[in-house]
Amino acid sequence: MDTRGRPRTPALSPELIAREALAMIDEEGADAFSMPRLAARLGVKAASLYNHLDGRAAVIEAVRRLVVEEMDVSAFDSLPWLQALAVWGRSYRAAFARHPHAISLLATTTISSPATLAMYEAVVTALARGGWPREALVDVLTGVESFLLGSALDLVAPPLMIDPSGHVPHVPVLAAALADSPGSDKAARADRAFTTGLEALILGLERRLEQETAGA
Amino acid sequence: MDTRGRPRTPALSPELIAREALAMIDEEGADAFSMPRLAARLGVKAASLYNHLDGRAAVIEAVRRLVVEEMDVSAFDSLPWLQALAVWGRSYRAAFARHPHAISLLATTTISSPATLAMYEAVVTALARGGWPREALVDVLTGVESFLLGSALDLVAPPLMIDPSGHVPHVPVLAAALADSPGSDKAARADRAFTTGLEALILGLERRLEQETAGA
Repeated sequence: MDTRGRPRTPALSPELIAREALAMIDEEGADAFSMPRLAARLGVKAASLYNHLDGRAAVIEAVRRLVVEEMDVSAFDSLPWLQALAVWGRSYRAAFARHPHAISLLATTTISSPATLAMYEAVVTALARGGWPREALVDVLTGVESFLLGSALDLVAPPLMIDPSGHVPHVPVLAAALADSPGSDKAARADRAFTTGLEALILGLERRLEQETAGA
Repeated sequence: MDTRGRPRTPALSPELIAREALAMIDEEGADAFSMPRLAARLGVKAASLYNHLDGRAAVIEAVRRLVVEEMDVSAFDSLPWLQALAVWGRSYRAAFARHPHAISLLATTTISSPATLAMYEAVVTALARGGWPREALVDVLTGVESFLLGSALDLVAPPLMIDPSGHVPHVPVLAAALADSPGSDKAARADRAFTTGLEALILGLERRLEQETAGA
């Protein structure tokens, strides 16, 4: 947009910096991410970055925002919490699966940006409306999110994750289970495992809430 | 042990190489792991490593074995699958929490070593004995493991994972839930979220199996 008088490169902005940082993490891994290297990719001095985003943590938060924007939070406004968790969960896993190197980085840095906080607000508000007591909201949110992050890791695992060849006589049940696991396609198998886990987790949370409510 | 005639350094062995590789990953991160750098840490030529472990994948499998040896698989022999999953799950998360940099590396490389295959054999054998049909075993195993890996990531997250300060008026439910989340201690909160998720997941799997068995 801002090309008047600066035809060579787009003007530096928090959005542009975040997009380049995410591209860098996607291409080179989270450990390769540093402010000097990000500045080099953008062809600017590192100090210029600080005019737009206040340090490394702020860049990581801007990256998180880009990933969170790929998630579907709308269901929490329109569906009961059980179904909304399922819709959000699928989009959450899909977003992180597109940015696998960002998983461990974003899972281990403090969340503070308004966009991400707004997503969590939508989740816990729906849980509270569904009857979850306030003191359980963070536990339920964190427990579900752990499953989603782990599932995103599984989605980027190699096609053959468990290879029993050469050891089949020692692991007969496992070998038969792998051979019988329907669909040779890795994505289909990962999807099925995700659905099994997500449905069980949500079913278990539903039962747990029923028990709490009955006991209260 | 093998110090006769070689007093300076312990003899190179697959075990020693794996321990040094895990220490390297723990200290420097998974992306820093390479065969030349591992050889340098051990003070040997890279070619020497290949006399003991057949390449990078074999070293990673040897590292996985060390992590797996920290997990408690014994419960699958003595307890019903529901309780055994809970015991194993706690030890699984604890083992990866001690080696957080290994999580994404081991979650995304093919599993082929006898020790790790034996652990999975114990899990799926217990599930099958509990009544799970053969074609569901891998899905249940993978779904539970995704939760455990994600929970290990959460355990190494910073003390304040969600920081709503400065935005509290926009996220009132979240801010109140965080303020009301019992225990200011990060480990206690992570433990509670883990327990909430694991119990819900296992409860949901129990219900699902009951439904499948009733429908069959």
